[in-house]
Amino acid sequence: MYDEVIKGIAEASRKASRTLVGLPSGVKGQALKHMAASLRQAAPFLRQENAKDLEAAEKAGLSRAMIDRLSLGEAVIDGMARAIEEIAELPDPVGTITGMTRRPNGLMVGRMRIPLGVVAIIYESRPNVTADAAALCLKSGNAVILRGGSEAFNSNAAIVKTLRDSLGFSGIEPDVIGFIPVTDRQAILDMLRLEDLIDLVIPRGGEGLIRTVSENSLIPVLKHYKGVCHIFVDRQADLEMAYRICLNAKVQRPGVCNAMETLLVDAPVAGIFLPRMAEIYRKHGVELRGCGKARAHLPDMKPAAEEDWYAEFLDLILAVKIVEDLNEAIDHIEKYGSNHTEAIITENYTRAMEFVSHVDSSTVLVNASTRFSDGGEFGLGAEVGISTSKVHAYGPMGIEDLTIQKFICFGDGQIRQ
Amino acid sequence: MYDEVIKGIAEASRKASRTLVGLPSGVKGQALKHMAASLRQAAPFLRQENAKDLEAAEKAGLSRAMIDRLSLGEAVIDGMARAIEEIAELPDPVGTITGMTRRPNGLMVGRMRIPLGVVAIIYESRPNVTADAAALCLKSGNAVILRGGSEAFNSNAAIVKTLRDSLGFSGIEPDVIGFIPVTDRQAILDMLRLEDLIDLVIPRGGEGLIRTVSENSLIPVLKHYKGVCHIFVDRQADLEMAYRICLNAKVQRPGVCNAMETLLVDAPVAGIFLPRMAEIYRKHGVELRGCGKARAHLPDMKPAAEEDWYAEFLDLILAVKIVEDLNEAIDHIEKYGSNHTEAIITENYTRAMEFVSHVDSSTVLVNASTRFSDGGEFGLGAEVGISTSKVHAYGPMGIEDLTIQKFICFGDGQIRQ
Repeated sequence: MYDEVIKGIAEASRKASRTLVGLPSGVKGQALKHMAASLRQAAPFLRQENAKDLEAAEKAGLSRAMIDRLSLGEAVIDGMARAIEEIAELPDPVGTITGMTRRPNGLMVGRMRIPLGVVAIIYESRPNVTADAAALCLKSGNAVILRGGSEAFNSNAAIVKTLRDSLGFSGIEPDVIGFIPVTDRQAILDMLRLEDLIDLVIPRGGEGLIRTVSENSLIPVLKHYKGVCHIFVDRQADLEMAYRICLNAKVQRPGVCNAMETLLVDAPVAGIFLPRMAEIYRKHGVELRGCGKARAHLPDMKPAAEEDWYAEFLDLILAVKIVEDLNEAIDHIEKYGSNHTEAIITENYTRAMEFVSHVDSSTVLVNASTRFSDGGEFGLGAEVGISTSKVHAYGPMGIEDLTIQKFICFGDGQIRQ
Repeated sequence: MYDEVIKGIAEASRKASRTLVGLPSGVKGQALKHMAASLRQAAPFLRQENAKDLEAAEKAGLSRAMIDRLSLGEAVIDGMARAIEEIAELPDPVGTITGMTRRPNGLMVGRMRIPLGVVAIIYESRPNVTADAAALCLKSGNAVILRGGSEAFNSNAAIVKTLRDSLGFSGIEPDVIGFIPVTDRQAILDMLRLEDLIDLVIPRGGEGLIRTVSENSLIPVLKHYKGVCHIFVDRQADLEMAYRICLNAKVQRPGVCNAMETLLVDAPVAGIFLPRMAEIYRKHGVELRGCGKARAHLPDMKPAAEEDWYAEFLDLILAVKIVEDLNEAIDHIEKYGSNHTEAIITENYTRAMEFVSHVDSSTVLVNASTRFSDGGEFGLGAEVGISTSKVHAYGPMGIEDLTIQKFICFGDGQIRQ
């Protein structure tokens, strides 16, 4: 029903993406800085359009937390602009040539990094994702097609209008930023059929959105469903370090995907470690849900149900399990984990290395908080998302993950024998 | 209907894949050499089972070419064994750590290469793919689930039995090589739903198979549909080199995906180049199909229909088009190409570099035959396939493309501020 509209947008994006291929970093950097300045200048317009969304949200009875997330205050607008300025300063991955070697026949073979082409980003809540996604894609030489949540429709449209107008001043084809002007979910389904026009889809939002996209897309999808992160406190852990890291991983920011959700405690150390750790958590308002063995040490603790081991609480709730040894910890992570982030706390060299080798989550840490699993913390610059599927990218993604390498060959007349 | 059978196989593969994670290269190498020896020893058994397939193929009236492809002669069996021995000698990508850097807080962050886990390979014709795919996956630390064509069912089953028995001798879990014992297409569809058990699907075969897999898979798919490869002969080409390369790219092996299918000739040089090139092609039995302008130079040439520009002939047929300049050549490739392989023949530096920068096919060559676009020729070792989608891998894929990098961090108590 929307298929012709969506196809028209995708065709315009595909065409515009061709104009980005050879664009030097300097030009892209200037355009990004102009985009940031334009957002600051357009603040009154953005706030006026945002007010329509806020009013509708109030009427619809959305929660205070959701309305806060929708709001484009001065600080949020300035934050969007600053984020774009930071993206402008990142090194440009496009054009990099690596691994150039000479084959026995004299042919020079290497790989050149190129943009993917057209990237569709489907997101739900915060309107600042609109500016962020557009900037990340421009920096990496990609056209972007944006499809935000219906509750932020006016805000997103205003941000896109501002950015597209700004691109015109920089001499860049405005269609490199495409916008789906339809809030109906059918528009997403129509878009996901356009495998000849769109190279990659990144859904950012709840598990429902991500499943819908994965199940209906003919286009490759980069996704992460959830972060059920574990910390294993080994029998030879430095306990003072373990208290500090386990507290940080749970309470420093419980609502994010790299917060710890399940604490695994090595049996020989549980009797010493658990009572004091529980006391620290109690002071910070953390609710514990334990296995039978853990409850033998802490009778007041709620019992953990089977679903608690799979849960991404995103809250001050923690599942606690006592395991017999490292192997049981690894098996537990394999069964219940989400391939996001896991840490071991230990002073034992062999078990640290075994944990690093055998846990195949996208980030594995020794003696550090799971909260470090983040593009910024890893030095990738702005984060495009986190992939928990072992295809294309795994773990925090930077702008390099919005590119791919092609093979290039310099010959002097070689033919195949 | 087969879903429980397929799920059981996938679960066994997933479990077995865990045993490969920490396996040293030496152990994998020994196991591969034993597999090769086992295939040679089992030649009588393989030929006996192969005879059943050949008999059925004769009865079904399959073409001589198809029956040839099915046949497991002594030379084919020896070739399978030698291919496995070569795979055993490749460097092992698993465990490699790269980019380890120290963050400002002292955290050491790097990336470690790990197997994908479980790879499903769905293929059609030659039974030697069975041995090849199993060896490539074992070398890269992956369990494999094989699903070959129904016409080679007995041959494939015999190869798998031989390889699994051999693994037992090497102390490796035989379930790292899984086999779908059902020829019904429904079995493929059931397998493609198992996104929690299988990490990647690689279809190898005709466009129909690949489309079926892509459209029905919840699991990421690495694919290439076809190779519509172009050569652009620039106005400043060394014409002797151009004749040599254009002949090689079309006739050296016309039935493969990196053979040239469309020749683009720069207008200023067409009057000199085309008549002699046509004469060379005539001697080699190549049928030319030209655009109107080309036919003005060669009136005997058949006219090319619109569909000829999209065609992967895989035969001694070539579409020929005269273009006004490099830009028209690039536009033609963008519109009709398949993102596989394109070459420019030129002595002009600027246009060579423009072609390399602006053509975004998976392999781009200057002054060399398209036939070089191949894992072996590029030094990747045995080829896993060729990807023409810009996700995960692009172009010829080696065993490294059956792995991914996870982030690993070595800390000394870091917490997030």
